Amino acid sequence: MNRAQRAQLALLLEVAGTPKPGNVDRRREYSDLRFEHFLAGAVGAYDGLTMAVGGSRLGTAFERAVSGMAEQDGGNTQFGALLLLMPLVKAATDAELTATAASRVAAETTVADAADFYRAFEHVDVAVGDPPSDLAELDVRRGAAAIPAIESRGLSLYDVMAASASRDGIAREWVGGFERSFDAASRLGAAVGPVPARAADVFLELLAAEPDPFVAIQHDEATAREVSKEARAALDGEIDPESLAADFVAREINPGTTADLIAGGLFIALERGVIRV
Amino acid sequence: MNRAQRAQLALLLEVAGTPKPGNVDRRREYSDLRFEHFLAGAVGAYDGLTMAVGGSRLGTAFERAVSGMAEQDGGNTQFGALLLLMPLVKAATDAELTATAASRVAAETTVADAADFYRAFEHVDVAVGDPPSDLAELDVRRGAAAIPAIESRGLSLYDVMAASASRDGIAREWVGGFERSFDAASRLGAAVGPVPARAADVFLELLAAEPDPFVAIQHDEATAREVSKEARAALDGEIDPESLAADFVAREINPGTTADLIAGGLFIALERGVIRV
Repeated sequence: MNRAQRAQLALLLEVAGTPKPGNVDRRREYSDLRFEHFLAGAVGAYDGLTMAVGGSRLGTAFERAVSGMAEQDGGNTQFGALLLLMPLVKAATDAELTATAASRVAAETTVADAADFYRAFEHVDVAVGDPPSDLAELDVRRGAAAIPAIESRGLSLYDVMAASASRDGIAREWVGGFERSFDAASRLGAAVGPVPARAADVFLELLAAEPDPFVAIQHDEATAREVSKEARAALDGEIDPESLAADFVAREINPGTTADLIAGGLFIALERGVIRV
Repeated sequence: MNRAQRAQLALLLEVAGTPKPGNVDRRREYSDLRFEHFLAGAVGAYDGLTMAVGGSRLGTAFERAVSGMAEQDGGNTQFGALLLLMPLVKAATDAELTATAASRVAAETTVADAADFYRAFEHVDVAVGDPPSDLAELDVRRGAAAIPAIESRGLSLYDVMAASASRDGIAREWVGGFERSFDAASRLGAAVGPVPARAADVFLELLAAEPDPFVAIQHDEATAREVSKEARAALDGEIDPESLAADFVAREINPGTTADLIAGGLFIALERGVIRV
């Protein structure tokens, strides 16, 4: 299995972990966003992941991965996970898979990578928060229409991530040394049992440790904090994780960023050989 | 998504369908053969599937697919499905995806393809039935050791399949015009609902229609016939398919050939566009 395939397997193992309260997993899904959309998303993302391993520019590889991922009817399945995987895959290929090397890959992205990133939003609708009003012309939802503004300001993809790190959990990884992804990998390696069960356990741990930024966007900060408390209660045995999963689905609470971090952690753990399937 | 990716997606959708009584699916697994082994098997099979699309000899592509599939700890996950997919993938690439074209691909296999097929058994333990005593030196469980006997007899892979068609359901497809695979594809196209649900429904239909050869090998012909009757009862609403699934797992009844036929049918149906994800 090559590196791009390990990244693909990380996407598949992430969605196989159950219960991951609030997210699509192999036992829970939404009528319009189902388990098989994630399978097809992982299959379709492969060419872009291969490009990242093959030395393509990060932005080019990312846009290709998203375009392939989007060839299914469920909409956005793994946009955030792929954005997190790209610097990890490139670091593993160019240097070694460390937080320092991944941060260097992130820091070395260019304006062209930023343009590709904006183009990727043309392939799929991604739920994101509103940017501050002074950054409205950089709103990712403008897609390719925002590229002239990016270019005239000379913003690299790293700059774009830095500008949204306060709202977006993946951007925070990019500018914060990929701390939570590597933490997830360590936890996955230290956990016991089959890999999908570990993924589910570590998902709850990460969710309990920090409010999910996507829940904050979807609902509000208070809900995101409440969700973290509920995850803590599930870890402490006060709530059955299966009940919590059903409850989150009913309340449309989707801690999607935490799921993305699990995908990143799974890739690191597979790459380092601390988990195996 | 390219053709090899559609074949890979067919493998993933097959195992996502639930309940598929007696087989690993996303809700049921065995302690040593789990859902994630099938995910990793599908990821690992991709290079061999790509070789089949790229014009490699069928045997070469098959051996590569099996070798990649086997890079996980669960053992044999998709050997039979890959053996069924290979002539279908090559027919779609070289001509068109019809039963006639697939049968021509099968008929045109060579002694070298047969040797590759035997080599594939070196990568993974596959449960097969005993050959007739006069064919003992061709027993696939001998792996590469049987190749001199294959070569001295000048047997093509098609000849090998023809010799085991009475016991093996995939061999029967190879020499019988891939009738059940194309039937499965039609049924999948005609069914309603999400693709994994269709796969589960058509699995029961195929199992009810014909005893599973793998169950006959694993247990005996009488058990295989009984299993078909129980599948019929589930289709008729007399048995809850979920109970039947739990019951088959407890009795270690694995209608694996029927699952392989579903994978073949899913590929044909994806290729023809009669199902989509």
